[in-house]
Amino acid sequence: VEENKSAITAVLKQYQDALNASDTAAVMKLYTADGAFMAQHFPTALGTEAVRKAYDRTFDAITLAVKFDIIEVVPISDEWAFARTASVGTTKLKTGGGGPEANQELFVMQKTDGAWKIARYCFSTTNPPH
Amino acid sequence: VEENKSAITAVLKQYQDALNASDTAAVMKLYTADGAFMAQHFPTALGTEAVRKAYDRTFDAITLAVKFDIIEVVPISDEWAFARTASVGTTKLKTGGGGPEANQELFVMQKTDGAWKIARYCFSTTNPPH
Repeated sequence: VEENKSAITAVLKQYQDALNASDTAAVMKLYTADGAFMAQHFPTALGTEAVRKAYDRTFDAITLAVKFDIIEVVPISDEWAFARTASVGTTKLKTGGGGPEANQELFVMQKTDGAWKIARYCFSTTNPPH
Repeated sequence: VEENKSAITAVLKQYQDALNASDTAAVMKLYTADGAFMAQHFPTALGTEAVRKAYDRTFDAITLAVKFDIIEVVPISDEWAFARTASVGTTKLKTGGGGPEANQELFVMQKTDGAWKIARYCFSTTNPPH
């Protein structure tokens, strides 16, 4: 269990770093082939091609500087786990402007080919509506 | 597996009905004691007391008429599962006004005391920002 927790924690940190580097290729290494990315204001992106497009679209529009606080990592079996995080930081729009960012995240993680990956991922802002 | 899928599907339909009835007590029967409700624009509500307050607050502010489309229910073990849904409908503000609603939802479900319940739940809108 502790070994799985450490491995999943490392993947979540890699995900944070890939976001901050606007690096779609690095993000994609962390997703399962049938992964689902459920980003606020967009329909669910399902599967490699759709997930890649969704991150490319994001990184084309904004630059992120965020820090993930890993609240819990819960291994369920040798193949499945879930994790909950909160992230804070800033968003810079490529067109100018931006502002503070605060989100909550729920991850379902799956171990495939010996590596823990993001299988399902939903987030939403914790900021009030503006 | 099929038995668990049916039971979880039934719980998700009960959740939909409880939302549409603005019935916090009915919602609470579907949550584990340590459940997390990750609603857009609010910090994560964790545990019975916080989750109850969050639904009371919601039902005080809006009346929902939504339909959940259950996209997948994936049992992981006899105790854990996850599910993904999409919901569409309308929100009516108690103060007047409202509009169309469209969300994507990720549920982690846990079987406790013989019943499947919501253990972690995050949703976000699929509508563009306005």
